[in-house]
Amino acid sequence: MVQFSTRMSQLKGSAIRELLKIATQPDIVSFAGGMPAPELFPVEQVMEASMAVLKEQGRAALQYSSTEGYPRLRQQIADRMLAKNNIKTDADHILVTAGSQQGLDFSARVFLNPGDVVLLESPSYLGAVNAFKAAEPTFIEVPTDDGGMIMEELEKILASTENVKMIYVIPDFQNPTGRTWDLDRRHKFMEIVNRYEIPVVEDNPYGELRFEGEYMPALKSLDTKGLVVYLGTFSKILAPGYRIGWVCAEDEILAKYNFMEQAASLQASTIGQMETSKWIDMFDLDGHVAKIREVYKKRRDVMLDTLKNNLPEGCVCTNPVGGLFTWVVLPESFNSEEKMKELQMKCIEKNVAFVAGGSFFPNGGHENTLRLNYSCMPEEKIVFGITTLCQTIKECM
Amino acid sequence: MVQFSTRMSQLKGSAIRELLKIATQPDIVSFAGGMPAPELFPVEQVMEASMAVLKEQGRAALQYSSTEGYPRLRQQIADRMLAKNNIKTDADHILVTAGSQQGLDFSARVFLNPGDVVLLESPSYLGAVNAFKAAEPTFIEVPTDDGGMIMEELEKILASTENVKMIYVIPDFQNPTGRTWDLDRRHKFMEIVNRYEIPVVEDNPYGELRFEGEYMPALKSLDTKGLVVYLGTFSKILAPGYRIGWVCAEDEILAKYNFMEQAASLQASTIGQMETSKWIDMFDLDGHVAKIREVYKKRRDVMLDTLKNNLPEGCVCTNPVGGLFTWVVLPESFNSEEKMKELQMKCIEKNVAFVAGGSFFPNGGHENTLRLNYSCMPEEKIVFGITTLCQTIKECM
Repeated sequence: MVQFSTRMSQLKGSAIRELLKIATQPDIVSFAGGMPAPELFPVEQVMEASMAVLKEQGRAALQYSSTEGYPRLRQQIADRMLAKNNIKTDADHILVTAGSQQGLDFSARVFLNPGDVVLLESPSYLGAVNAFKAAEPTFIEVPTDDGGMIMEELEKILASTENVKMIYVIPDFQNPTGRTWDLDRRHKFMEIVNRYEIPVVEDNPYGELRFEGEYMPALKSLDTKGLVVYLGTFSKILAPGYRIGWVCAEDEILAKYNFMEQAASLQASTIGQMETSKWIDMFDLDGHVAKIREVYKKRRDVMLDTLKNNLPEGCVCTNPVGGLFTWVVLPESFNSEEKMKELQMKCIEKNVAFVAGGSFFPNGGHENTLRLNYSCMPEEKIVFGITTLCQTIKECM
Repeated sequence: MVQFSTRMSQLKGSAIRELLKIATQPDIVSFAGGMPAPELFPVEQVMEASMAVLKEQGRAALQYSSTEGYPRLRQQIADRMLAKNNIKTDADHILVTAGSQQGLDFSARVFLNPGDVVLLESPSYLGAVNAFKAAEPTFIEVPTDDGGMIMEELEKILASTENVKMIYVIPDFQNPTGRTWDLDRRHKFMEIVNRYEIPVVEDNPYGELRFEGEYMPALKSLDTKGLVVYLGTFSKILAPGYRIGWVCAEDEILAKYNFMEQAASLQASTIGQMETSKWIDMFDLDGHVAKIREVYKKRRDVMLDTLKNNLPEGCVCTNPVGGLFTWVVLPESFNSEEKMKELQMKCIEKNVAFVAGGSFFPNGGHENTLRLNYSCMPEEKIVFGITTLCQTIKECM
């Protein structure tokens, strides 16, 4: 009888990854994943970058390399963080990871012992919750509203809770809700965090994908005490297939992440890093991101319009100003796993897939919610899929 | 004051990775790494494979994909394990990982709670020890001789030890010693393991690099109870830069590894997997491995000859019949960190680098040992480097 570690009782397959197997059938209109639009991938340019790397530095690209990451890429990342997020950092404070999912895993392992408390937005990103679970923490969900995490609630929790070792947040176009923290809360948050001196993991995969309004400063740009660990990724602005993300943190903390990476996988892909770097040097990332923004904005518009015209009374959705997702709350009568399963199955029979929202709450409940991704379906499919979804919600009522 | 998890007190930077920063200076004759010879990388062919993937399936290559791995690659891996290791498996029992280092990390996290016992060869691979340390186990080193792990010692330990949750072994051309288990021990080992029903992690990165003599069966090929988890990698037979390895295990265990991968990094690089797979379809991996074997065999010969002609009395080295490493034991007078540090520094002053062997013993001691890599230096540099090393050992005596 093989015995497994206790952490394995926390982990199961992600409902999303299971669903994605269905959702990648060609006929399915899927709002289930969080995938970028593949038709926007600059395939021809990637070919050029790939050829250039292999011609100029083929042997180095195929060899082992440092845990820290490819120096040129780390410099480009630091430059971009300054330009886009006003974060003053340098290449020495960047650690390249195998996607930002690896940064999430390392965060839990660097900061959390079993039973330690991690605070996060309610709801929060399922992939992060899943990564953290492997470290067997206690989750406390901080209530949120349309302006993001509610600071009074955060204060209350911190004042009354021991062993809070990490706060995980997605202030920009949050996954799953699409919400963005307003400016006041960002300042207030840093004020509270500085007082309690608790490390913050700021996950910002979507920050560059703002459709309208003013960019909000990254928490890391407001960090005066070196408490914020910033996670970035090329998955949503270039391509997820390379699995290239990064961690930006101060010396002592970054060293721990580096040790974790040595233990966990040695390094991110050398060739993947060099091709990403070469692509950025050869082509126009800003222009490319502008193109992505334009396409996603249209899709967001179509999805929100269709939702607002078709959602039955008692249902609400968020108004994301960027990113990949909107979030729908159904009436209380849907607040059971069975009821949502029924809705989900009926939709799949009609070739429409979405993710039920309950799994984004680590402590359960809130089954009457769903996350809708608008980035990777063309507009006419969004209209069909959302109309079908709304019709099916009515049928289930 | 930021607090870190207790596991972080176990982890520090690998001495090897630190040394590699020195050892990659162009003038250094380095026996320190475990890197394949970059001049053997099939760069032109990789360009062709890369172009073919991006032309035929560019969008898929740049997108997210399943945790299990690219189906065609999993099939190729299963086929190769049958052809090379007589392991009867199929694509459904292969999980692609970001190098086999990730398989080591997952192994510890799947099987080990803090304080649980892991058995391993004395000495064993430093990267594995480092990965396991993050799970905070107790290490018990099983004594070895030139035929591999000593089965009587293994029996004794198992009979007298509770909470042994995993046995980690490298039966072929072991890192760091270059030793290979003889056939009798493999059968005896499986007999013992079947009796105790303890999961075994068989790490086989070098198995295809045999220079002479008969191939020994993989433990996995002798596994009748589904206890063996087999770790493979393309790092030593094609290129490490892609970070593509794999886990082969039975259903229940493999499902746990899959959950760990979902939590830890979602998946290995899509494009890396597809290019590796395409390369194998387009070109001749067997022929390529034969070329690698031929080059490494010559380098091994030169290194062993030079060692045997120059090592002072009281020093011995192993006789690897494959793989990347030989292992030198110096007299007891070198059995201190300071003494070995002195030798190491004197060698580096003369532009020769090696790894001190002490770090391959998780419970310490054995400072009078060193690991020598012969795969990535040309023959004349091996002669110069080993002559210099032997001369310096004499000076330090």
